[in-house]
Amino acid sequence: MRKWETVEGSLATPRGFRAAAVAAGIKKAAGALDLALIVSDAVKTTAAGLFTTNRAAAAPVILCRQHLAAGRGRARAIIVNSGNANACTGRAGARTAKATARAVAKLFGLSAHQVLVASTGVIGIPLRLDLILRNLPSLKENLSAENASSAARAIMTTDTIPKSLVLRTRMAGKTVHLAGIAKGSGMIHPRMATMLSFISTDAAILPGDLQVMLRAAVNVSFNSVTVDGDTSTNDTVVALASGLSGVSVCRHSTQGKHFLAGLTQLCQALARMIAKDGEGAGKLVTVEVRGARRPSDAERIARAIANSPLVKTAIAGSDPNWGRIICAAGYSGASFDPTKVDIRINDFILCRRGLDAGFDEAAAKRELDAKELTLRLDLHQGKAAARMWTCDLTHGYIDINASYRT
Amino acid sequence: MRKWETVEGSLATPRGFRAAAVAAGIKKAAGALDLALIVSDAVKTTAAGLFTTNRAAAAPVILCRQHLAAGRGRARAIIVNSGNANACTGRAGARTAKATARAVAKLFGLSAHQVLVASTGVIGIPLRLDLILRNLPSLKENLSAENASSAARAIMTTDTIPKSLVLRTRMAGKTVHLAGIAKGSGMIHPRMATMLSFISTDAAILPGDLQVMLRAAVNVSFNSVTVDGDTSTNDTVVALASGLSGVSVCRHSTQGKHFLAGLTQLCQALARMIAKDGEGAGKLVTVEVRGARRPSDAERIARAIANSPLVKTAIAGSDPNWGRIICAAGYSGASFDPTKVDIRINDFILCRRGLDAGFDEAAAKRELDAKELTLRLDLHQGKAAARMWTCDLTHGYIDINASYRT
Repeated sequence: MRKWETVEGSLATPRGFRAAAVAAGIKKAAGALDLALIVSDAVKTTAAGLFTTNRAAAAPVILCRQHLAAGRGRARAIIVNSGNANACTGRAGARTAKATARAVAKLFGLSAHQVLVASTGVIGIPLRLDLILRNLPSLKENLSAENASSAARAIMTTDTIPKSLVLRTRMAGKTVHLAGIAKGSGMIHPRMATMLSFISTDAAILPGDLQVMLRAAVNVSFNSVTVDGDTSTNDTVVALASGLSGVSVCRHSTQGKHFLAGLTQLCQALARMIAKDGEGAGKLVTVEVRGARRPSDAERIARAIANSPLVKTAIAGSDPNWGRIICAAGYSGASFDPTKVDIRINDFILCRRGLDAGFDEAAAKRELDAKELTLRLDLHQGKAAARMWTCDLTHGYIDINASYRT
Repeated sequence: MRKWETVEGSLATPRGFRAAAVAAGIKKAAGALDLALIVSDAVKTTAAGLFTTNRAAAAPVILCRQHLAAGRGRARAIIVNSGNANACTGRAGARTAKATARAVAKLFGLSAHQVLVASTGVIGIPLRLDLILRNLPSLKENLSAENASSAARAIMTTDTIPKSLVLRTRMAGKTVHLAGIAKGSGMIHPRMATMLSFISTDAAILPGDLQVMLRAAVNVSFNSVTVDGDTSTNDTVVALASGLSGVSVCRHSTQGKHFLAGLTQLCQALARMIAKDGEGAGKLVTVEVRGARRPSDAERIARAIANSPLVKTAIAGSDPNWGRIICAAGYSGASFDPTKVDIRINDFILCRRGLDAGFDEAAAKRELDAKELTLRLDLHQGKAAARMWTCDLTHGYIDINASYRT
């Protein structure tokens, strides 16, 4: 089986897709891109989606769930705005999301449920429908492969860089593409999709298979990244498959396994970009736990460490404070014996069998000074493992969030 | 029933107690108090204790549990150091805690299990037994009612102020006292006792009753305060009752209820002091949730809000970002309908029935500028309520924790 290789491109690199973005005036900053449209021209395009578990789910999230169900996993367009989450906006917010989908559908001769809607930004402020409607014609006009890369920029909020990746492979003698964009840098937590991400592929995949594979990939990628433990009202991951590569993928086939590997690779790369661009983040931190008795123990420990403000501030200060790491493991709810635990930064050992390993302080600081590092725990109690991505906690996080709304 | 009134004093205001503190050299800062001894001279003194739920419980916590069990709730002395947590220190750490208790017991002619040991500070560094042993004679010599107030200072780590309170009431024609000291400003979380606190009273209470009442009081006080969601390895609350007031308290009697009210008042006041002195905190925030269907729903929502870094940074910046509050409620796991929720800062309404209440921004900022404020949620869905205390999240937290160890 061939690997998936990274190539230059955009959401429109997979055949059948076009996209565009405009500055619609939803964001306060004048001229900032804040409205994007992603369209598949293939009639048989299938869709899958995963959404926030937050009880206060935003209007577009509720609408997407309805549309995916009503359309039985067939969708052709995604309209997404940044600058306003359209969350906690009541019936007016629901009407705005619905009217947006209807207007896009009309423009392309689709049914409303073939259009998915996503929003990100401030909560509780009405989203102005007029700003969206008045920009739809120019969005349609600008749809192209060339303009597709602007979509990654239009979904940013506190993100400092656009997040985008394209993968390519050969299957059955043909070329298949997978592309994805993502946004998210705060309010990132492993309980669900944790941010916005839109994925396109030209593989042909039935909706049910696409949904199952998307869930599997998201579980070990977007659901394994945390910035601050807050799960947003708007988390959305949507994948569209145009089928125009001519390669059919069933999830139980060898090709299904190969496609899932690519989808997982794509989602993990985007998830790492999110953790690395965490609000105020200076460092990308991978937390790896192994040797646990059960997978749930490994996951609980990895999550507690990745969410601990004390661990994350210590990493910001390059302080090899392994006591806080074992402490976080201790309150994670996982079952383990602390006196058997080894803790390393990369390959540098801090703690052996629960005790200080007698390490060189300056050398430990050098390991922690790196922009990317891995905290490794070996529990020596079993074979289960888990991995999480997070970032350090810095002054920048406070700066960004103390006055986000105003 | 008379109330409990606040009076000047120390742990030695209740009859039978003496205390002292010294600078033993455990803390790095020269001359900083870091070792305290609290002793009851009453032979029949009873004891109760609550300890961390952390799996990586420190050596002194493990020893305290053993001693309380072995002594059947009889203890006469507490020896406590700051600057070193004696956690993750293996067998050597366990030996140090044991030897400390034995040395104190010998000094006062007690059995070892009548001595309780507590530590707080850095994790994973051996605690020097010699520094403790060499200071025990002078501690014993200095034991007095006058020196007792220094104990509150000797247990401080990143605390900026000592935390101490004394209450007095009349029962059965006699005066009864309750006194407490506490430390804690980071690594504070509601899962268990969350910090160190030592309580003395001259009421006469059987160990079983004292334990039950201590647990009840701690549940609605120390277990309802959170600074950063981290549960420490060393959390300890110990209460000693000398009986020298001559007033016997059974928990099922009217006097039991009165005593519990006083104990709760004492613990809540100390818990609020901890939240107010949270690392880097500028504001004391009370989170009140009412109108929930079940107490567990109210508690989950209050806890999620009090732990949300996004809510806490918004409060630091006086940003009336109620969307983050409803978002935290939404991911708390509690069952509720977001469209029925009212949110207020003190009495100032931000959100009515899940929607923006159309408030005056400047007026909201003024409410948030206060040093003490209450976030009130009314779910309008039932009769259950819960309360948590926390603080805002500021640059100070990062400064304190980025280089705590070094």
